[in-house]
Amino acid sequence: MTSLLETINDPADLRRLPRTQLRALADELRAYVLDSVSKTGGHLSSNLGTVELTVALHYVFNTPYDRLVWDVGHQTYPHKILTGRRERMGSLRQLGGLSGFPQRAESEYDTFGTAHSSTSISAALGMALAAKQKGEDRHAVAIIGDGAMSAGMAFEALNNAGVAEGNLLVILNDNDMSISPPVGALNRYLAQLMSGHFYDAAKNVGKQVLRAAPPLFELAKRLEQHAKGMVLPATLFEQFGFNYIGPIDGHDLDALIPTLENIKHLKGPQFLHVVTKKGQGYKLAEADPVAYHGPGKFDPAIGLQKPSTPARQTFTQVFGQWLCDMAEKDPRLVGITPAMREGSGLVEFEKRYPGRYYDVGIAEQHSVTFAAGLASEGLKPVLAIYSTFLQRGYDQLIHDVAIQNLPVVFALDRAGIVGADGATHAGAYDIAFLRCIPNMSVACPADENECRQLLTSAFEQDHPVAVRYPRGAGAGVAIEAGLRALPFGKGEIRRVATGHPADACKGIAIVVFGTLLYPALQAAEKLNATVVNMRWAKPLDTRLLLQVAAGHEALVTLEDGAIMGGAGSAVTEALNAAGVTKPVLQLGLPDKFIEHGDPVRLMALQGLDAAGIEKSITNRFSALVMTGRPALKSVA
Amino acid sequence: MTSLLETINDPADLRRLPRTQLRALADELRAYVLDSVSKTGGHLSSNLGTVELTVALHYVFNTPYDRLVWDVGHQTYPHKILTGRRERMGSLRQLGGLSGFPQRAESEYDTFGTAHSSTSISAALGMALAAKQKGEDRHAVAIIGDGAMSAGMAFEALNNAGVAEGNLLVILNDNDMSISPPVGALNRYLAQLMSGHFYDAAKNVGKQVLRAAPPLFELAKRLEQHAKGMVLPATLFEQFGFNYIGPIDGHDLDALIPTLENIKHLKGPQFLHVVTKKGQGYKLAEADPVAYHGPGKFDPAIGLQKPSTPARQTFTQVFGQWLCDMAEKDPRLVGITPAMREGSGLVEFEKRYPGRYYDVGIAEQHSVTFAAGLASEGLKPVLAIYSTFLQRGYDQLIHDVAIQNLPVVFALDRAGIVGADGATHAGAYDIAFLRCIPNMSVACPADENECRQLLTSAFEQDHPVAVRYPRGAGAGVAIEAGLRALPFGKGEIRRVATGHPADACKGIAIVVFGTLLYPALQAAEKLNATVVNMRWAKPLDTRLLLQVAAGHEALVTLEDGAIMGGAGSAVTEALNAAGVTKPVLQLGLPDKFIEHGDPVRLMALQGLDAAGIEKSITNRFSALVMTGRPALKSVA
Repeated sequence: MTSLLETINDPADLRRLPRTQLRALADELRAYVLDSVSKTGGHLSSNLGTVELTVALHYVFNTPYDRLVWDVGHQTYPHKILTGRRERMGSLRQLGGLSGFPQRAESEYDTFGTAHSSTSISAALGMALAAKQKGEDRHAVAIIGDGAMSAGMAFEALNNAGVAEGNLLVILNDNDMSISPPVGALNRYLAQLMSGHFYDAAKNVGKQVLRAAPPLFELAKRLEQHAKGMVLPATLFEQFGFNYIGPIDGHDLDALIPTLENIKHLKGPQFLHVVTKKGQGYKLAEADPVAYHGPGKFDPAIGLQKPSTPARQTFTQVFGQWLCDMAEKDPRLVGITPAMREGSGLVEFEKRYPGRYYDVGIAEQHSVTFAAGLASEGLKPVLAIYSTFLQRGYDQLIHDVAIQNLPVVFALDRAGIVGADGATHAGAYDIAFLRCIPNMSVACPADENECRQLLTSAFEQDHPVAVRYPRGAGAGVAIEAGLRALPFGKGEIRRVATGHPADACKGIAIVVFGTLLYPALQAAEKLNATVVNMRWAKPLDTRLLLQVAAGHEALVTLEDGAIMGGAGSAVTEALNAAGVTKPVLQLGLPDKFIEHGDPVRLMALQGLDAAGIEKSITNRFSALVMTGRPALKSVA
Repeated sequence: MTSLLETINDPADLRRLPRTQLRALADELRAYVLDSVSKTGGHLSSNLGTVELTVALHYVFNTPYDRLVWDVGHQTYPHKILTGRRERMGSLRQLGGLSGFPQRAESEYDTFGTAHSSTSISAALGMALAAKQKGEDRHAVAIIGDGAMSAGMAFEALNNAGVAEGNLLVILNDNDMSISPPVGALNRYLAQLMSGHFYDAAKNVGKQVLRAAPPLFELAKRLEQHAKGMVLPATLFEQFGFNYIGPIDGHDLDALIPTLENIKHLKGPQFLHVVTKKGQGYKLAEADPVAYHGPGKFDPAIGLQKPSTPARQTFTQVFGQWLCDMAEKDPRLVGITPAMREGSGLVEFEKRYPGRYYDVGIAEQHSVTFAAGLASEGLKPVLAIYSTFLQRGYDQLIHDVAIQNLPVVFALDRAGIVGADGATHAGAYDIAFLRCIPNMSVACPADENECRQLLTSAFEQDHPVAVRYPRGAGAGVAIEAGLRALPFGKGEIRRVATGHPADACKGIAIVVFGTLLYPALQAAEKLNATVVNMRWAKPLDTRLLLQVAAGHEALVTLEDGAIMGGAGSAVTEALNAAGVTKPVLQLGLPDKFIEHGDPVRLMALQGLDAAGIEKSITNRFSALVMTGRPALKSVA
């Protein structure tokens, strides 16, 4: 079935094929991608869209000597298959298996790790200028989607690359779709490029490349422009100093290969505009590329099926419902997403409140300051953003929101371990990087209902508050219908160690921030420990904490974030400030990047399931646990 | 002397003046700015450049109902003078005095606090869309320089604003100068706009505005363009959906005022390109706007004088010298700055190694990933960046540098309290936000010589390292000439408490990170405390720490950064991890934003001078200090 593809164990094999066989190879590759993703889950639409481009790039360029940098990198399955990883595709995004993104450690063909968008031009420019400095003639190629192109850092890179003398090729993979529908002026501009005059002219690929090449032709063009009173080049990308070529059909190997071969001989920054279709070649994905953006396992012959029994509500859904309910109650609410309408649960909100919904595109920096601007006029913005992507708006959070103490609610989805997306998407650092900022508050709901309640608490404040919640579903508790707030900055005791004399120290108290409350409660049953649900990493409920500290011989802090600087450290800071000296065990994520895999398994590997928590506490406080005192007695 | 200016106590007074008097007022205002800055120090060139623009904006727009957002905001002295703060200008940038930037708390005319660049369009767009949602007819105006326009977030904002239906006016204040010389394609493009066809046409201001206004004229223009085969509008800003007007002379009130009055009646996003001259009207500043960017006090009749006796070397100078020396030794070194050549001490490096010097413009995100790209090819990039501006590249530091463990050296200038620039520029959070990231190391030199040595240590590593050092000079120690490294991750004991029996606990140990070592040593003399110079916030010298903890009854941690999540918390985390329970007092910056003022005084107010440190320790550990044990005895 995949007879041709099976002969390709690295791109050198590919480059030995006659050009006439490439179409057949591409067809096999597409079938392999579809088959493979249907078995493992993963990104589909984007990978079906880059099959021909991948074949053409490895055919024309001398990889890995020439560098390919794939922006975002979720479209690199064809690249992985052609670069010696075909047979490992069954392990994709699983523990110990292939990453869903390029990784330097995984292959020499993965020249730069990507996952967050819009980094490729900066990285490839660095490579191109390093080659220049080292006297190497290698090419550096960035392949970037139209959605990613709207981010500020892509613009910063273009602004630099256009005037730099490096052998840099930027390929705009224009499929008119990031995860959410494209927004903004750039996208409208690209649509103009494709629909208008330029696209017609572009059909003559040879002429396009020629036009770009010889200085004389270039001079003639400039003179002609000058005569018309136009001193400026024609396209935005030319205004940035690039030689613009395109748009060309990104599924047509007979367009791609000669174009790339010609470009390879040009000096200086080149810009190739390629038009592809997400989901290309699989009708169901072509028809609904969003649904097939990142599907789970499915039968390619049937397509995605609605799950028969409704799964438990995810935190994302809880947030989406809360946002609609609060918007109904308070007309000041506005919802903002940087290009994550689906992922952040804003589909229904947009439908119901289109005038109060802002998708700003992949533009995290802008999203935060835009929210600050809205808040400065008395509105109440809720910025729905993944924890990991808030890292992009960190300065804006400090400088524009926190210093001015403006009431912006940050709804941080994907906090903690995210699973299949791996280290690049981990929301492990938010407690640490947020709580050090004055005026910020950080809430850590323990379950779905608290998520709703704490969002309401956050919304009621007159200062910035982040509410962080993990990917997926929580403990499955019932969610109340109203909009009741929990008290600001207050925790609660969820379980009290039993069997101690009334005024004696009660052994161990586990002080929990977030959804690890539930495994902590399980562990506490075994250990007869007290369990405190802190709810807020900042402000800390110091009064409750000191009361608990006074009543117990040792404290355990627990969070699904980095230990370094995290909520556990907030606890020890508070104890130190109060002059309380007490043994503390800090449990949370260790000081290392945690790779992709099943999140339940990953948490267990970090000792952050009930058994692991019990074990860590027993190991550390064996004296307290093992003395046979009531602490050991399990209670019903 | 300033008879007209003295009658202006708010912009309403200004708007009552006949237009014929505005020129005279602008002249008085310029003289007042020059006189004022010469007495207080502060920003000069940029403020001399915005005199007429400020007069015109307050004259035409109904401030504060209409919103002015000044990008960066260091050019707002004329604005402050015209909005009721004239007589307070003598207190500029001093403790309790006027801020050098707009501040919402300072005046209702300061509609949005700025200081970091490129935030104004996002904020003003938020204001414009809030007005729309609330049914208010106010205008929102962002005034942004050409340097600030090169930052990604300005692009993100343009991309959104161009397709939004808000009454937003973006004024590009094009003075061809950010603090460092302008770089990048955008700047070259702006130069084209000014020098070419467009500038000639622009001289007819009335026509420009007309051209922009009526739909019929617009339609005719489009048809004409279409006939020429140009479906695209003429300028980059029009491609972003703005109505582009300009460039016009920003010192010509007769151009500015009618243009602004016409624009006021246009709907949708407007873009006015204004050309000004930094230092305008003061010959010395016109001739050398960089020198007069942010001068200290000076005599306007004479101008800036070279300081007669060379001041102590600043950390910036130490870094600049080290960079040149290390570049000479290691050809892999490349130096990168995001538009801070002077401030970061790279002037000499650029001169000596132009091919290894990259000023990427105001583009912090790009600067970090660009460095990662260079490092991925075996070069050794040193990114010179202010601590506060690294906040802009935080995600890139995590995602592109730390996850890939690439050897980028971050030379973090302006760590800790910065003084006159105030809260927006504080480098108070870097230890907290950096040390939670796996693979990162963070060095905190105690003095100039250690700064040089630790830069060398950082450069020798094969992973990312940040070296943070404060603004200004250090203790004034001698700086060795060679390139000796200090051991990675190791501290040293600088003073041992005396008079204790050999195996007895020695009272208090002060564990210091950074330049507060010197006041700590002074305090320790009084307290007879041990002093540990930790040098590295990460990795922590745990062995040394545990040894010191075992030998003392209590620990004091000390740092010039936020206590929350800072190096002191690293100490308690290490103690907790080792199962050591010990009283700890954490000293550092409190959880609040610290305003502008003299840095020595500000540190004293936080209790972070020798006397304050002594007092805090005595208060907390009075039992240890006051028992009359040897700990009290001062030693020679």
